[in-house]
Amino acid sequence: MPSVIALDAMGSDRAPKPEIEGAIQAARHHDVRVVLVGPEPVLSAELERHPAAAELPIEVVHASEVITMEDKAAQAVRAKRDSSMRVGLRLVREGKAVGFVSAGNTGAAMATAKLVLGVLPGVDRPALAAVFPTAVGTAACLLDVGANVDCNPENLVQFAVMGEIYFRSMFGTRRPRVGLLSIGEEETKGNELTRDAFQLLKQLPLNFVGNVEGGDLFSGEVDVIVCDGFVGNIALKICEGLAFQIFGLLRKSINSSLASQVGFLFSRGALKGLKKKIDYAESGGAPLLGVRGVCVIAHGRSNANAVKNAIRVAAGLARARMNEKIEQELSAAAVIA
Amino acid sequence: MPSVIALDAMGSDRAPKPEIEGAIQAARHHDVRVVLVGPEPVLSAELERHPAAAELPIEVVHASEVITMEDKAAQAVRAKRDSSMRVGLRLVREGKAVGFVSAGNTGAAMATAKLVLGVLPGVDRPALAAVFPTAVGTAACLLDVGANVDCNPENLVQFAVMGEIYFRSMFGTRRPRVGLLSIGEEETKGNELTRDAFQLLKQLPLNFVGNVEGGDLFSGEVDVIVCDGFVGNIALKICEGLAFQIFGLLRKSINSSLASQVGFLFSRGALKGLKKKIDYAESGGAPLLGVRGVCVIAHGRSNANAVKNAIRVAAGLARARMNEKIEQELSAAAVIA
Repeated sequence: MPSVIALDAMGSDRAPKPEIEGAIQAARHHDVRVVLVGPEPVLSAELERHPAAAELPIEVVHASEVITMEDKAAQAVRAKRDSSMRVGLRLVREGKAVGFVSAGNTGAAMATAKLVLGVLPGVDRPALAAVFPTAVGTAACLLDVGANVDCNPENLVQFAVMGEIYFRSMFGTRRPRVGLLSIGEEETKGNELTRDAFQLLKQLPLNFVGNVEGGDLFSGEVDVIVCDGFVGNIALKICEGLAFQIFGLLRKSINSSLASQVGFLFSRGALKGLKKKIDYAESGGAPLLGVRGVCVIAHGRSNANAVKNAIRVAAGLARARMNEKIEQELSAAAVIA
Repeated sequence: MPSVIALDAMGSDRAPKPEIEGAIQAARHHDVRVVLVGPEPVLSAELERHPAAAELPIEVVHASEVITMEDKAAQAVRAKRDSSMRVGLRLVREGKAVGFVSAGNTGAAMATAKLVLGVLPGVDRPALAAVFPTAVGTAACLLDVGANVDCNPENLVQFAVMGEIYFRSMFGTRRPRVGLLSIGEEETKGNELTRDAFQLLKQLPLNFVGNVEGGDLFSGEVDVIVCDGFVGNIALKICEGLAFQIFGLLRKSINSSLASQVGFLFSRGALKGLKKKIDYAESGGAPLLGVRGVCVIAHGRSNANAVKNAIRVAAGLARARMNEKIEQELSAAAVIA
């Protein structure tokens, strides 16, 4: 039986276009049924432009309101009680869907998920986990990337446990290596928060490799990297900004002479391959770990491919029963922490 | 009269080779006299391999000990009282040199500088400032990148004032735009530290543009970006690591097919130009702002070109009388903060 995924059809910057195209691709290529959530007239009109959709396991559930990128999270959650986010997450709570995907306002999606789904036992704060490619071709996962700004050591421990389970569920790694993002390898290095968290982490039955530095994110020598949401969000945005800048400079360099333009015609395939490798759209969004239900948050700039991948990730996490594992292992970790 | 710069000749990973070659290049191309500090027999032997050096304003001052990358900073400073770092910084304190450059152990260089030179009035903590290129071709400066791990809002205010003066001195920008590294544009966004610092910064007579996010580092829309040393060091290492990874993937992509190899022959110049643009060696090291004297810390992997540029930067900062300006403006800022 296909997994039912509720998709906030009004989330992304160019919604509902990428959402509807992504839903069609996902329904066609993966074993999923997609429930598009949003203003029914808008969604039906857009769906009519894709006659093939009628044959696919796609349906529409009406929600009269839309939370925009400009909305303040806390306010929007209270004021817009019939938003596409809230209605979509309610489908998960009621068991009508096994997972929820949104490319909308991250703060509002997280706040709504906490409100509607609640948190798992043993979790003080849900965490947003970002996945990116490393230099050796493997994936690595950084969390928290924005859900929690001021953290205590116990929060970081919970992030480590959740991130480790997520990584195992997604990539099948038996013993993912877990590192603590800091500014030196020795356990005495770092700030107050990381030094205290280090002491807790080394007591857990995790494959804890100790402190890792900013440059290690891409080394492939660590799978799950734990930090507070302030540091993690800055790290994530730097990666996006720098990759964008390097490609921009590359384009400028290439256009600067006829010879390099000619050269580019030959190496274009290679550069495109590279770009695809570090493209956020391939990663399929960041799951919000620790809420009672699968919730995947995709980039606001998501295209159809990114939406399709986020749906695939949500279905995979539901099938892997990740939340049950988090609940079990956190209750074991709580004995130590 | 040439500026006299004391150079720790034993700092870099491949010392003293890059130091001596960098000193020769600096003495040849810039209006400086370089004092090489380190074990005299070692330095004289290496200098003999460069007969041209005899004609240049280069001299040697003996120091019997060397602080290695493996040394613990605090310990090394106490134990190695005749280290090349300490002897070099003493030359600055005694007025025999106007600036000091080291590509050695960053922690030890900072601790020794604080000990030997002391801090400027109004400065609670010196800060390490890193300079990097932006997408529009201008430079931007991030501080602190590692000198201070747990900071209070007043520390960040001092970093802002020092960074602004540094940027003006180096790049001649009349009103550098100063931003606070955070995770959202609104002043209510960020962690406790940045929210409090925001309130102080907006009262200062700086061109304060508010919060900036990780991706804005390279936008060219902000000149000086302020953060605590934990966040700054992670940010810096991520930039190095990611740039390194992208170039690695690029090389792999290019080698993956004959067509792209042929293409690369044509566009090689463009790629080299790009690499140079984002090469740390061009930036000339990070000044330690707030100590009583000019102290520039270069990367441990520095080559001769990086050493030469660090010497140029140190001489420029001395000529710009940056420290006197910091002292004056901090006493003005103290009235507010």
